[in-house]
Amino acid sequence: MKRLKLGMVGGGRGAFIGGVHRIASRIDGRFELVAGALSSSADTAAESAADLGIAPDRSYSDFRVMAKTEADRSDGIDAVAIVTPNQMHAAPVIAFLRAGISVICDKPLCATLAEADEIAAAIKSSSAHFVLTHNYTGYPLVRHARRIIANGELGAIRVAQIEYAQDWLAKSIENEGQKQAAWRTDPAKSGGGGAIGDIGTHAFNLLGFVTGLKTEALSADLHSFGTGRQVDDNAHILLRMQGGAKAMLWASQIAIGNENRMCLRVYGEKGGLEWSQENPNVMSLTVHGEAKRILTRGGAGFGDGSQLWTRIPPGHPEGYLECFANIYTEAADLIEGKNDGAMLPGIDEGLQGMQFIDTCLRSAKNNSEWLPFGLKKS
Amino acid sequence: MKRLKLGMVGGGRGAFIGGVHRIASRIDGRFELVAGALSSSADTAAESAADLGIAPDRSYSDFRVMAKTEADRSDGIDAVAIVTPNQMHAAPVIAFLRAGISVICDKPLCATLAEADEIAAAIKSSSAHFVLTHNYTGYPLVRHARRIIANGELGAIRVAQIEYAQDWLAKSIENEGQKQAAWRTDPAKSGGGGAIGDIGTHAFNLLGFVTGLKTEALSADLHSFGTGRQVDDNAHILLRMQGGAKAMLWASQIAIGNENRMCLRVYGEKGGLEWSQENPNVMSLTVHGEAKRILTRGGAGFGDGSQLWTRIPPGHPEGYLECFANIYTEAADLIEGKNDGAMLPGIDEGLQGMQFIDTCLRSAKNNSEWLPFGLKKS
Amino acid sequence: MKRLKLGMVGGGRGAFIGGVHRIASRIDGRFELVAGALSSSADTAAESAADLGIAPDRSYSDFRVMAKTEADRSDGIDAVAIVTPNQMHAAPVIAFLRAGISVICDKPLCATLAEADEIAAAIKSSSAHFVLTHNYTGYPLVRHARRIIANGELGAIRVAQIEYAQDWLAKSIENEGQKQAAWRTDPAKSGGGGAIGDIGTHAFNLLGFVTGLKTEALSADLHSFGTGRQVDDNAHILLRMQGGAKAMLWASQIAIGNENRMCLRVYGEKGGLEWSQENPNVMSLTVHGEAKRILTRGGAGFGDGSQLWTRIPPGHPEGYLECFANIYTEAADLIEGKNDGAMLPGIDEGLQGMQFIDTCLRSAKNNSEWLPFGLKKS
Amino acid sequence: MKRLKLGMVGGGRGAFIGGVHRIASRIDGRFELVAGALSSSADTAAESAADLGIAPDRSYSDFRVMAKTEADRSDGIDAVAIVTPNQMHAAPVIAFLRAGISVICDKPLCATLAEADEIAAAIKSSSAHFVLTHNYTGYPLVRHARRIIANGELGAIRVAQIEYAQDWLAKSIENEGQKQAAWRTDPAKSGGGGAIGDIGTHAFNLLGFVTGLKTEALSADLHSFGTGRQVDDNAHILLRMQGGAKAMLWASQIAIGNENRMCLRVYGEKGGLEWSQENPNVMSLTVHGEAKRILTRGGAGFGDGSQLWTRIPPGHPEGYLECFANIYTEAADLIEGKNDGAMLPGIDEGLQGMQFIDTCLRSAKNNSEWLPFGLKKS
Repeated sequence: MKRLKLGMVGGGRGAFIGGVHRIASRIDGRFELVAGALSSSADTAAESAADLGIAPDRSYSDFRVMAKTEADRSDGIDAVAIVTPNQMHAAPVIAFLRAGISVICDKPLCATLAEADEIAAAIKSSSAHFVLTHNYTGYPLVRHARRIIANGELGAIRVAQIEYAQDWLAKSIENEGQKQAAWRTDPAKSGGGGAIGDIGTHAFNLLGFVTGLKTEALSADLHSFGTGRQVDDNAHILLRMQGGAKAMLWASQIAIGNENRMCLRVYGEKGGLEWSQENPNVMSLTVHGEAKRILTRGGAGFGDGSQLWTRIPPGHPEGYLECFANIYTEAADLIEGKNDGAMLPGIDEGLQGMQFIDTCLRSAKNNSEWLPFGLKKS
Repeated sequence: MKRLKLGMVGGGRGAFIGGVHRIASRIDGRFELVAGALSSSADTAAESAADLGIAPDRSYSDFRVMAKTEADRSDGIDAVAIVTPNQMHAAPVIAFLRAGISVICDKPLCATLAEADEIAAAIKSSSAHFVLTHNYTGYPLVRHARRIIANGELGAIRVAQIEYAQDWLAKSIENEGQKQAAWRTDPAKSGGGGAIGDIGTHAFNLLGFVTGLKTEALSADLHSFGTGRQVDDNAHILLRMQGGAKAMLWASQIAIGNENRMCLRVYGEKGGLEWSQENPNVMSLTVHGEAKRILTRGGAGFGDGSQLWTRIPPGHPEGYLECFANIYTEAADLIEGKNDGAMLPGIDEGLQGMQFIDTCLRSAKNNSEWLPFGLKKS
Repeated sequence: MKRLKLGMVGGGRGAFIGGVHRIASRIDGRFELVAGALSSSADTAAESAADLGIAPDRSYSDFRVMAKTEADRSDGIDAVAIVTPNQMHAAPVIAFLRAGISVICDKPLCATLAEADEIAAAIKSSSAHFVLTHNYTGYPLVRHARRIIANGELGAIRVAQIEYAQDWLAKSIENEGQKQAAWRTDPAKSGGGGAIGDIGTHAFNLLGFVTGLKTEALSADLHSFGTGRQVDDNAHILLRMQGGAKAMLWASQIAIGNENRMCLRVYGEKGGLEWSQENPNVMSLTVHGEAKRILTRGGAGFGDGSQLWTRIPPGHPEGYLECFANIYTEAADLIEGKNDGAMLPGIDEGLQGMQFIDTCLRSAKNNSEWLPFGLKKS
Repeated sequence: MKRLKLGMVGGGRGAFIGGVHRIASRIDGRFELVAGALSSSADTAAESAADLGIAPDRSYSDFRVMAKTEADRSDGIDAVAIVTPNQMHAAPVIAFLRAGISVICDKPLCATLAEADEIAAAIKSSSAHFVLTHNYTGYPLVRHARRIIANGELGAIRVAQIEYAQDWLAKSIENEGQKQAAWRTDPAKSGGGGAIGDIGTHAFNLLGFVTGLKTEALSADLHSFGTGRQVDDNAHILLRMQGGAKAMLWASQIAIGNENRMCLRVYGEKGGLEWSQENPNVMSLTVHGEAKRILTRGGAGFGDGSQLWTRIPPGHPEGYLECFANIYTEAADLIEGKNDGAMLPGIDEGLQGMQFIDTCLRSAKNNSEWLPFGLKKS
């Protein structure tokens, strides 16, 4: 088994999500990190590269130089991970795609709808692949939930309740030098959305992934509770979905007592299910008229093929890093032509996320007006 | 200790909530059921009275006769429980109040706003008391949550999430002869609302009881999923409350896998708490920056005075019947002049519930328009 | 429906379990408390009787006088509840049985094996009934578990884990004037056992009730952790049961963080189940090779006939008082000849409990020697 | 950062724990697998090596050749993972230690006490390090529990309840060609113990790790429920520990409904705590007289230094693979001289585990006789 060569843009010292991507790329041994433009500061880039065992000649301070150089090398990278803040996604994504290098990009896609269109165009004209790390779709039981619904076990979907609650922004720590909080609450860097962009897009994506339904309209009530905060930190959103289904989406970063409580509940004509990210190895499923069943990752009824999504027996918990690794491993399969990436989030999910942010912001500005949600396809 | 004499209107053979009221009235030994107009059918009334050990001469088939006769007896009833379907509340409530007999009425208050005003007027001109059995306010930890918030332990409230999910109407069993389903889904009997009236009013009342905040506006998306159903069975509601707080309220009777999942979460500047009806003897409380604490009914920190709301040591669960009994026992105290009924739901809560139903129906008809919620006082 | 007339011995002001018996007797309206020897102090007895609305001429300070007088009255009591400390059970039990009055006695049966034999003899020669309030057997899901096992759904039982953990004796509060702790930790009053008598007998009884298996031998390691305490406050017990099943029993009153955690797990060849008293409305059941199912009180699969054991729909929790009321209500049926009391604990369970205490004490004294457990039948 | 070079003995196609070790070694990027004697079959060894990207010249079919060859290479391995069945641990462990190569060995240490002594001697005379993968000690909250107890927050320990329940051997699948079951239930390969060796040693080790207490005596009741099974599949064990503490240990592989339920509860004079492996990111802690607190991995009160044991923020679950990776990462630090391995299980824990198995077997053979547990030190 040969490892794919991976580069990274962003993710230098002091960053958060870059480290997650690196672990995720390593877990199944399918990638080897060999190049990086880890920081826009040349010094930080070089030091960060040294930390990670990247050879000095493959540490870049300019992602454009990196894209060109790596494309020209015979041992150049097969894929690049883009883990910069949102407003710095579009340029490197496009540069690497144009250089024919596959891109694994953190979410949300970018900062503006205009950028999103440019990325979509770049993907169309590139031979390389594009994967967006809506990583929660990599949880084995999330995928099992999707399959249960696709198989019709719940019947036509009626109602979904999705929430993603955190509390780390309960105080305005962006004013106290917390770097992660600072860029996420700066509208110029985040792209205008706060909680709706950072975690709301995850929730929205999960809702669509599991139910298989498109959103047709939404009504959003957004609010900033943090003192002096310029972006939303609490979002209350109603959704109307295909086939008459209705959903509620709650995203909050000020709900004290919640760490990363992302919880999805889906109810159909014939049954209901419930899953929560903080204990992701169990899911409940109730068929109408029967007792609730507790499904476990890898346990009874988990289904053929699902063992690809998990590494260890049921009862030994897998977590966030393994769900993230599933995305990386399937990206490797996609790049190597071993699968078609059907389960992988990509540009469509990215565009939908950007439209979700935009539609929420417009609805909220107009007193929660219901707005149609015209899902653009790439 | 002398027992108060209790009468009952409704609650004959085949009824549900009447039996609950009877148990609740007995648990603390403060009431003795001695009279009843248990059914509008004379035969059923008599048979039901015999079942319950009510003397034949105090079994009535007409509540007006009962009110008059009992008021005239030297050993007449001190209070009457009204446990008929919603659209049959107003007339008996008014009749007994006019007869000077205290009323303990099931919720929602009645079927129309006009009736509600009549009841309010009758209360004003009566010397008797009026209690509305929003029984969930009787749960000890619900009261403790209210006190925690009133004490400022959570700081200013920012967000509340309240839900009441059931699944017993997932199928349209009202078409199959299920009596409870039939009247609750008949707009003429329920008062127009379905889930919003039957359980939404409970959720709305609990939200106000615990947070101490009034609702200023709401936006409602109501839907009927049951085939041929004429009232809502799923309600998605956004609320804006005093002081800038925001809330989401979900009431559903088609969410398969939920029996009576009424769950309240409240988040303020300084902390958050969570309570769920299905396991009501625990509540979580998180102060910002500290570990979550699990409070138990009667356990550490439960507080002085709270022992009045519970009968047995922590770890021995109390349930729905005991919370209902708390309402009855405090009603006895109120009638005997031993307390002022400050914790008891009454006409104000009843009016608010009726306005809640009305406002939701109007908002939903106009595409979830935000409507002001002008809380009328009795 | 006529109410049975109930008397009570013990349970005056300051007592605990007497109040529980009174509520339990009232919940279903089958008993009316009309007489009592509520305290051995004449003053306390009279005051306590007045509190409870017992007529002065039916308040007694001597239970023997009460037994004789009530037996002689045409409106005398049908049954008496014995709620005194353990060492004061035998005499009143025997006195009332001899007077032909049915007895509902708190557990454990009494203080010594010799007393137990006397009680058994008195029962044999009396026309009245005897019920022992091992109340946990009244929980609906406990009875459902018993039925599941009796039906063979778990196959032959292999292993059971039963525990009852409390923490109220973590400190030696018996030295600080806590009345409940004082008599329970006084070997002269408790009968020699501490935790094994007070809660261990409940656990042991539940184990036999649910599994339907007799214990054949046990090995006990008892310990007193409380400073200066003379009875065990922690018991570690191994059991060998009929058919080769093995069990562990843990009873502790010093396990900080546990209020009344009584938890039973049973595993057979074909399946396993688990139930816990602190959230008694749910139980898990796993059939080998299938997903775990969550059974609820009154929910799917609860079974015909079970509705007799519960009063309200699933999702509305019942608790400790309702399980206790089930014992009283079936006792009423038994006394009225409406059932045979097959589910009710009685003298056999009482004798077994006494033998359990005795065998544990002897085993512990001899370094946890395995001792045969010859279950005597009454 | 330079990666350490890792070899592996065992872990070829069809094996289980080898794959876990490989992932664990990769997660933090501290090891690179470069050599292996992955199977005693030369063909399987070569194919397995190719699967894993090991160069053909570093795939060995004989671990002795591997030890010698790698020791002689200038780029030879720094450490070797021994992941063969129990009875094939001792020989390779000793061979690599003698070759000066550090050893990371799966548990239990080996198959016999005599082998254990030989391993201990080899460690003494080697300059290389020895780590035993009692991986559960790598869970962040397990370490936090140990620290809480070491800090005296629970006071003197009184009682501990430890259990490890599985159900995968409920049926005798060893007779149906299940490879993992076959060697684990073959006394010749497992070393005599069944559940006590496979999972009981984990439980026993965790008990000592967290409480910091040595076991002084034990009494074991072992049983084989599986048809035709030659080793124990259920173990009921009582323990007496230093300072008068008492413990119960339950290990079972036939408890249907349990996947890998390893649960530890510890109670002291001042408090109690509880942790369970299946949801390892939370732990409860109760200080006497206070409400129970829910501690989370990385959450409030997690403590300075603990961040070394975790990679991502609280609320994003880590699992079994990350706890295993903590062992590998600290082994890397130990080998590189960066820490002293104080938290790492090694030969002492290995010897204790072997003595635990031996003592349990002897006690069980003699009717659960209490046997002293003389902990040998290496």
